[in-house]
Amino acid sequence: MISSVPADPTGWEARYGTRPPSDIPDEAFSHLLRHRSVRAYGDQPVADDALSWAIAAAQSASSSSNLQPWSVIAVRDRGKQERLAELAGDQRHVAQAPLFLAWVADWSRLRRLGLAQHIPTEGTDYLESYTIGAVDTALAAQNAAIAFELLGMGIVYIGGMRNHPEAVAEELGLPSGSFVLFGMCVGYPDPSRPAEVKPRLPQAAVLHHGRYDLSQEAAAVADYDRRMSQFQRSRQRDDQAWSRSAVERVRGPEALTGRDRLREAVNNLGLKLT
Amino acid sequence: MISSVPADPTGWEARYGTRPPSDIPDEAFSHLLRHRSVRAYGDQPVADDALSWAIAAAQSASSSSNLQPWSVIAVRDRGKQERLAELAGDQRHVAQAPLFLAWVADWSRLRRLGLAQHIPTEGTDYLESYTIGAVDTALAAQNAAIAFELLGMGIVYIGGMRNHPEAVAEELGLPSGSFVLFGMCVGYPDPSRPAEVKPRLPQAAVLHHGRYDLSQEAAAVADYDRRMSQFQRSRQRDDQAWSRSAVERVRGPEALTGRDRLREAVNNLGLKLT
Repeated sequence: MISSVPADPTGWEARYGTRPPSDIPDEAFSHLLRHRSVRAYGDQPVADDALSWAIAAAQSASSSSNLQPWSVIAVRDRGKQERLAELAGDQRHVAQAPLFLAWVADWSRLRRLGLAQHIPTEGTDYLESYTIGAVDTALAAQNAAIAFELLGMGIVYIGGMRNHPEAVAEELGLPSGSFVLFGMCVGYPDPSRPAEVKPRLPQAAVLHHGRYDLSQEAAAVADYDRRMSQFQRSRQRDDQAWSRSAVERVRGPEALTGRDRLREAVNNLGLKLT
Repeated sequence: MISSVPADPTGWEARYGTRPPSDIPDEAFSHLLRHRSVRAYGDQPVADDALSWAIAAAQSASSSSNLQPWSVIAVRDRGKQERLAELAGDQRHVAQAPLFLAWVADWSRLRRLGLAQHIPTEGTDYLESYTIGAVDTALAAQNAAIAFELLGMGIVYIGGMRNHPEAVAEELGLPSGSFVLFGMCVGYPDPSRPAEVKPRLPQAAVLHHGRYDLSQEAAAVADYDRRMSQFQRSRQRDDQAWSRSAVERVRGPEALTGRDRLREAVNNLGLKLT
């Protein structure tokens, strides 16, 4: 088989519809920019070593005051994956992935260590701690995602783990003070069902200099609506403008697929969010 | 100058005090595993192209339902950086970094797009949306962090942006419905003041298989306390056990450096957290 040079090796053009500002500065950028959410996998399992390296990458991400308030549950059991898939709104790839990772914002560890030393840990009940837990877990998971992608695998994040947080916690035996922030399916992409690099908003819409600046937003969003509609049409999908479909996703509580009760669920799982 | 082969090229040994499970699977892993928080920079500025590539990496990270609910403010103005440094608890590196990035969890964009289309956006007021904002912003920022590190730069996250969220928002002209989740200092490391790879908890403490499993926690934490004390002593720093100092950071509201009022602050900035 003759390998061909891709027209857009960095992914920049797929993201923005423009030429990159310079030659790719490092080969690893092609992994970063060409990220796709992969939901179809081949049979090849994820080796234990690959998981170890990915977790090492995850643990190497920054952690606020080095508190390391997260855990991760590796699931490689079809029965359990079937139940988690159902809880996530029947997402088949959760059941089918060779490896499913449940990323846990976890204050239970420091609470146990506090108990053992007779030191209170009431600080874990504040929105600040919820925020640290969410941020640190996400930084770690993203490092793991990049690690898997460097190894030729693909991933997709599963926000649907927040549809039924208590049932998910029960399924995974989580202690009070922890909850699954999101899941991640991992596997080698099925070449017969390739995923696509999705266009993103122009940088002018998200990058500001010195102060938040609205002057380029309207033009940037119009450009993006046009590119996204084109992208959707070329895949025989509904080509409603992004600016419309995105707003519909946050219209009200009924649009949040049950997650309008996340605060109650997190509270039930032992985090008060003062 | 003769370049020598580092004893621990991947950073695995610095993280865990053990040998890696296999040869490094890809050179980029050394960037992931050898991450350090860099707070001392040389004079070399961050080129505009490098910033563009880093933002492209950031935008290439996953985004829940492609909502892209974040913005980033690039600050390269000593006066503004001085004020932000002060608001962050007088962190000098915020003032001294060649580039400071304020990462904004931003629902204001979709609110503006909703207003223009006469569609409500009440969903942005829920903890679920706060969570998506925190997670998506963190995934994006981490991709940017890796991008900068691939280019030879160093970064440090600045959680201190949450010490005075309203004043920070004012300084950066943020619209209602957005707030600075964290900052990031960026620059080329000052070789005369190198930063260190910090040890992390053994994988057995954070990685579970199938179910959350406490059986290895005590031994893992004891091992980590020993390694961290050794690490601190070798740097002439207070060698209090990690399990003690970490717990002290979440003892109660008084330990949260003013961030016990984050919920009130976020509310003042237009996000209700229902």
